[in-house]
Amino acid sequence: MKLGMIGLGKMGFNLALNLMNHGHELVVSDINPQMGLQLAERGALAASSLEEVVAKLEHPRIVWVMLPAGEIVGGVIESLSRLLDAGDIIIDGGNSHYKESIARAEKLRERSIYLFDAGTSGGTEGAEHGACLMVGGDPEVFKDIEPLFRDLAVERGYLYAGESGSGHFLKMIHNGIEYGMMQSIAEGFELLEKSPFDFNYEQVAGLWSNGSVIRGWLMELAQNAFAKDPKLSGIRGVMQSSGEGKWTVQTALDLEASTPVIALSLLMRYRSLEDDTFHGKVVAALRNEFGGHAVVQEKD
Amino acid sequence: MKLGMIGLGKMGFNLALNLMNHGHELVVSDINPQMGLQLAERGALAASSLEEVVAKLEHPRIVWVMLPAGEIVGGVIESLSRLLDAGDIIIDGGNSHYKESIARAEKLRERSIYLFDAGTSGGTEGAEHGACLMVGGDPEVFKDIEPLFRDLAVERGYLYAGESGSGHFLKMIHNGIEYGMMQSIAEGFELLEKSPFDFNYEQVAGLWSNGSVIRGWLMELAQNAFAKDPKLSGIRGVMQSSGEGKWTVQTALDLEASTPVIALSLLMRYRSLEDDTFHGKVVAALRNEFGGHAVVQEKD
Repeated sequence: MKLGMIGLGKMGFNLALNLMNHGHELVVSDINPQMGLQLAERGALAASSLEEVVAKLEHPRIVWVMLPAGEIVGGVIESLSRLLDAGDIIIDGGNSHYKESIARAEKLRERSIYLFDAGTSGGTEGAEHGACLMVGGDPEVFKDIEPLFRDLAVERGYLYAGESGSGHFLKMIHNGIEYGMMQSIAEGFELLEKSPFDFNYEQVAGLWSNGSVIRGWLMELAQNAFAKDPKLSGIRGVMQSSGEGKWTVQTALDLEASTPVIALSLLMRYRSLEDDTFHGKVVAALRNEFGGHAVVQEKD
Repeated sequence: MKLGMIGLGKMGFNLALNLMNHGHELVVSDINPQMGLQLAERGALAASSLEEVVAKLEHPRIVWVMLPAGEIVGGVIESLSRLLDAGDIIIDGGNSHYKESIARAEKLRERSIYLFDAGTSGGTEGAEHGACLMVGGDPEVFKDIEPLFRDLAVERGYLYAGESGSGHFLKMIHNGIEYGMMQSIAEGFELLEKSPFDFNYEQVAGLWSNGSVIRGWLMELAQNAFAKDPKLSGIRGVMQSSGEGKWTVQTALDLEASTPVIALSLLMRYRSLEDDTFHGKVVAALRNEFGGHAVVQEKD
């Protein structure tokens, strides 16, 4: 099939490669023209504007956008839709909030433009060699673009999840689960590190990747990380987040769903961003007030 | 090799089968003689007492005990050790507390009997077809029994973890991680169930088992469970525990290690055991006291 790919970051670039390796024709564009030129060397058509992308596609056009969530992807979808005609298709493969995807799809539907929300998992490696895709949108039109997902995904690695928003909802929950699983794995290694034993963490993660109940890709990634740096001594324990965990917890509040472990995993990430905390000062001060317990003095 | 297997429950029985399939000679015994007879039909020697197990083995004897943790395995190891001679070997493949394994190994070492603590993961299926084993004990003597672990385990699925106790310590932490991972996965499905979408959980778990970041055996087991009962409507959400999660949290307290997600996963299990809670009554009563908020009346 022929389609556009807008946004050639780590994910978009690798998805484009993956699609081209499966024989699809790509019209590519990125704010950094170098990315498009790199793909042009491998056979893609590089375009320098949304207009050019649209002009190089035939109706019904298919345009995959792979951009940071929020205003950036929202703006591009808005601009793009003004260039498209009834029957054209936009696939948002990024991490948009599912409520935004629902709203955008509704708005585009008035003009018979179809928006699909395609949550994409598997990292950059998966994007190039086989991803996991969860897709929401019109069930009939989905059949027309299903070959793209079949080609991009590992075997049994894509799902038509339901109406608009369901794909990004699934991806959001996937990431929320990921937060809890990562924190749990990490706490296990925290205990090994504080234990009286002298474990080789690469070996332990390798062992747990083979035949154990907790085997899985995250444990294999832990093995890789410990292979590079046995005690991770080159890395500070600062745990950034990209927003999907926060959305998961906000969704749990919306739905009044009891999800304490995912919520706490997110809060532990926030805790890790600060060298010191104000709540820590308050607890120390209160212990001092009621019991005269010593406090650690702040250095000037 | 020739060895004894004492305790033919779900795990011991399958480990014995696995060893026999690899050409080892088994002398088997269980409190229920039927289990030994079943294995005898497949070529094992059934014994009706510890004395008979020991009598049927040649020095240096190897005896694998696969029994419930605590007094039961402690009593059997104690009785067994009185029948064994210097140079004989006991392997405790169950879930003993690592501190007990350290103490038992020390005591037996005085008589030159070697105790190995072998944490065993992978469930009953793994026990028969390829387990994950983490082993603590004497490093030199381990080499003599290493073929047993190589045969029992999946490829790269066993590890000599270090001194006595290290095997059971690793298994305990493995199970602690498992608590957090399971709770996190489960909370994700809780959110899907409360969402406005109509997901097929078998399909979702199947999708997440292929190419996603959170793929792994637990997700495959979730797929199996949803295949049998799409909404798990035949199961109450009562989450039992076998003790290793509790030990992990106790160990976190001993080591003063920050492991909130594993701890909370354990506490959520305890919460699930009660239809109502006393803390719930207290919060409801306090809201009523300060704000006149209505309480849900207890039915007689």
